[in-house]
Amino acid sequence: MTETQPNQNRTLPDRDAPIGVFDSGVGGLTVVREIIRQIPNEKIIYFGDTARVPYGNKSQETVTRFSEQIVRFLRTFQVKTIVAACNTVSAYAMEALERDIDIPILGVVKPGAKTAVSATRNGRIGVIATEATIGSQIYTKYITELNQNVSIYGKACPLFVPLVEEGLLEDPVTDEIARRYLTELIDIDIDTLILGCTHYPLIRSTLGRIMGERVTLVNPAYETARKLRELLTGRNLLCETPPGLGSNRYQFYVSDKADKFVRFANSIIKYGILSAKTVNIETY
Amino acid sequence: MTETQPNQNRTLPDRDAPIGVFDSGVGGLTVVREIIRQIPNEKIIYFGDTARVPYGNKSQETVTRFSEQIVRFLRTFQVKTIVAACNTVSAYAMEALERDIDIPILGVVKPGAKTAVSATRNGRIGVIATEATIGSQIYTKYITELNQNVSIYGKACPLFVPLVEEGLLEDPVTDEIARRYLTELIDIDIDTLILGCTHYPLIRSTLGRIMGERVTLVNPAYETARKLRELLTGRNLLCETPPGLGSNRYQFYVSDKADKFVRFANSIIKYGILSAKTVNIETY
Repeated sequence: MTETQPNQNRTLPDRDAPIGVFDSGVGGLTVVREIIRQIPNEKIIYFGDTARVPYGNKSQETVTRFSEQIVRFLRTFQVKTIVAACNTVSAYAMEALERDIDIPILGVVKPGAKTAVSATRNGRIGVIATEATIGSQIYTKYITELNQNVSIYGKACPLFVPLVEEGLLEDPVTDEIARRYLTELIDIDIDTLILGCTHYPLIRSTLGRIMGERVTLVNPAYETARKLRELLTGRNLLCETPPGLGSNRYQFYVSDKADKFVRFANSIIKYGILSAKTVNIETY
Repeated sequence: MTETQPNQNRTLPDRDAPIGVFDSGVGGLTVVREIIRQIPNEKIIYFGDTARVPYGNKSQETVTRFSEQIVRFLRTFQVKTIVAACNTVSAYAMEALERDIDIPILGVVKPGAKTAVSATRNGRIGVIATEATIGSQIYTKYITELNQNVSIYGKACPLFVPLVEEGLLEDPVTDEIARRYLTELIDIDIDTLILGCTHYPLIRSTLGRIMGERVTLVNPAYETARKLRELLTGRNLLCETPPGLGSNRYQFYVSDKADKFVRFANSIIKYGILSAKTVNIETY
């Protein structure tokens, strides 16, 4: 669009602005990984709320309050858009966040719902997510809007986030717990499973092994990054300049335990994250 | 002491003041249960930080900041003493809390250490607790002060709190995870195991079954309530009047999900807890 609208050069500074991404902890890094793959020129400011993780067993009011603090923090960086890379936030807080903001804000639920509807052949879609996301029925709502003939089976898996945050990505305990959570979805004969929490792609191989080859696993992170690219392109906000060397392209902030976060982040994003800064998010 | 010091009647209001008890979530209720058993005349104000649970995987700085907020909240009730019914707080924040306070404040670690030293026969004590409590080496410190000839083996069990908070008290998954955590303590041939997290007495039967009859399980809650009674007696602060009917003796506050807390609390304290109030603890 730049070529056809040369007079809109005043939007250029916005294009170079970073994208804000946040999650309750490390899960949102799976979305960051997809954003880096699909739109590698972008700068990213990431915030993980490691002092208050997990969100998935907390109330809508609390999750909304926490999210609003984080959005206020991210806006101090003049971000051009914000991605709530957390299904619980996307399920509970999107309306409140959208109401108060004048830049685009994207959740991960709608993109995931859309991909699942395209993927299913037998019309039986499973959703695994936190207690909060399942309780909100948000996936059921969006999927039904897209196709009324699809049946959706939700299953809360409250222990997956603690297991992932503890780094037990390939572990017999995770396997055992996953088996227990997934058995009923296998019995119901779903053919598509939405990984409805950004932590879950990190145990994707375990989930895939248990569900079997017939079941398509949907990772909303991929579709979210695609939608983000679309949105930025549509608004002439896509960064077209490859970042220079040493340009501090990705910045990571957490509310606690920066060292542990960095170790974990480096295992997810093969980029060489050197540091994360700690922020007292309660003051925002 | 009242009878021998009739002129100190001005201390009477203090005696009737409530005791403040707090924890990251529901675990501290195991301490409340013991306090009710041992000193049933006391009023109790309980705070559970359900919006920010768990504490055990967070940093000393964060746990201290959260604890200071809670102490400020409890003091609005003119409590006569405070019990930090959380091992992570006792390990990380006691010094900071004691520095700023002019009423007695009790942790759960010292009482537990003392009981374990009395209980062991072969001088091999195991401690299971959160990552934070084990990392602090606080049990090792206190036990060694009491008896240098005792060996202490610490094992972090980071998944027990999420399992208990999810209500999986008697569950094959909890059993499986406990087996994994405890195997090395069995191999080391400990004869005494400190349940170094106030959540753990809630899975005591599972832990006892796996450790076997030869191993004594130490629940610091019992010894903490005993020490509290001693402390209140010594300072002439023990409430001697049985509370009247309808006297709102036990009040429960949480930072999130009051309903879920009440259901859980009623399964721990067989008292008929009718309600818990939600507090925005970040404003204290």
